[in-house]
Amino acid sequence: MHFTSEQRLDDNVLEREFTLGEIPGILWAPASTPAPLPLILLGHPPLGLRRMYPRLVARARHAVADGFAAATIELPGSGDRPRWEAAEQARADLRRAVEAGEPVSDEIIDALVLPLVDRAVPEWRAALDALLALPGIGGPVGYSGGVISIGVRLAVVEPRIAAAVLFAGSFVPRAMFEEARRVTVPLHVLLQWDDEGNDRQAALDLFDAFGSEEKSLHAHMGGHTGVPQSAAEAAARFFTRHLR
Amino acid sequence: MHFTSEQRLDDNVLEREFTLGEIPGILWAPASTPAPLPLILLGHPPLGLRRMYPRLVARARHAVADGFAAATIELPGSGDRPRWEAAEQARADLRRAVEAGEPVSDEIIDALVLPLVDRAVPEWRAALDALLALPGIGGPVGYSGGVISIGVRLAVVEPRIAAAVLFAGSFVPRAMFEEARRVTVPLHVLLQWDDEGNDRQAALDLFDAFGSEEKSLHAHMGGHTGVPQSAAEAAARFFTRHLR
Repeated sequence: MHFTSEQRLDDNVLEREFTLGEIPGILWAPASTPAPLPLILLGHPPLGLRRMYPRLVARARHAVADGFAAATIELPGSGDRPRWEAAEQARADLRRAVEAGEPVSDEIIDALVLPLVDRAVPEWRAALDALLALPGIGGPVGYSGGVISIGVRLAVVEPRIAAAVLFAGSFVPRAMFEEARRVTVPLHVLLQWDDEGNDRQAALDLFDAFGSEEKSLHAHMGGHTGVPQSAAEAAARFFTRHLR
Repeated sequence: MHFTSEQRLDDNVLEREFTLGEIPGILWAPASTPAPLPLILLGHPPLGLRRMYPRLVARARHAVADGFAAATIELPGSGDRPRWEAAEQARADLRRAVEAGEPVSDEIIDALVLPLVDRAVPEWRAALDALLALPGIGGPVGYSGGVISIGVRLAVVEPRIAAAVLFAGSFVPRAMFEEARRVTVPLHVLLQWDDEGNDRQAALDLFDAFGSEEKSLHAHMGGHTGVPQSAAEAAARFFTRHLR
């Protein structure tokens, strides 16, 4: 892990950009910390860190104000990272289906999501290794938001993830329902009831499938980006209950 | 409204029992209030105020600590209030169906719930008239919990209800889905995901039917009485956002 830039935001949050091999990332933490902090990994959709930055930094500032460090990395195939042919093809197929008003087939969803999960999850784990080796960061670790299938896989394979806030707002391959049964950490699941790009019944089925003894579903009105402020605060309280 | 007893609880909450005609009720408020308070009506299942008292007083103490007055009345046919033949018959039919492991028919649900709603709602409105005439109580008014169909009807017909916390934990007659469309106040709906006596799909359909622009659904694991403390706190914050 190699820090490439550092700036102090006006609320005294220290923002450091880094690279981990070829993967760019950002770490937010208080300018000084008396003790190692718990960490929240900030998931995001595959639209590129630069485009997602305004929302990510807002989430990070809240996390730091609540006593956490927060970090994120670029997803494979997003931002300046190399595209790969099959993912571009799956995105094109998805666009075509949506524009034609056709249902999005299982084949398209699998092609779109499964390779992304397979590539991204080992990278998040490598980032976790590097982040937890830093002096100011001690864990436990939470994962929040982004592509829900990445959160599910991480929660299954990465024992350092102690709790997760998942956003039921992206397509879920059928294979992920089986993985969901193997999730055991506390979950706080957000669902936008009228999310135009999301299958509500699939989201409810996925929630039902999670093996966690402690899980809760929080559905709010509105579309994909309409999560109300009160819902973000409730998610923050979930992390405070479980990670601090 | 006639106060019949008064005691100061150890946290300085003033608990006053009253009767409104034949209907017993309880009002909780701070021992002294500088300004008229908003009011939360505490709904409860038809098991009698005496049996429900421990849970009601706990909810009332939280409400008072949050800056509200809280009040409840006995439901028709519960506690010491006269039973009526049709309701007793419906309860017996329900018991029989549940013990035989049969599905509870729409006829039983209608016979059980609709007459209760028809009788109870005018009584809650009369109680509201009397409570809002007291010097320390000024509104706005929230309704919380209990038989969900009573909450739905109250929210439709009583313009002084400004927000409601509803517990999707009791049978819902089909006719109530139509009434639900006419609810417009902000709603915070609780659902116990594994509620043994409740139809989860009906609860989700009812949530979907509500006409309110602001509504949220909060599903937690466990059975009917297993609502976690964090869920009660989130419901309290909903009232604080909307009534204070």
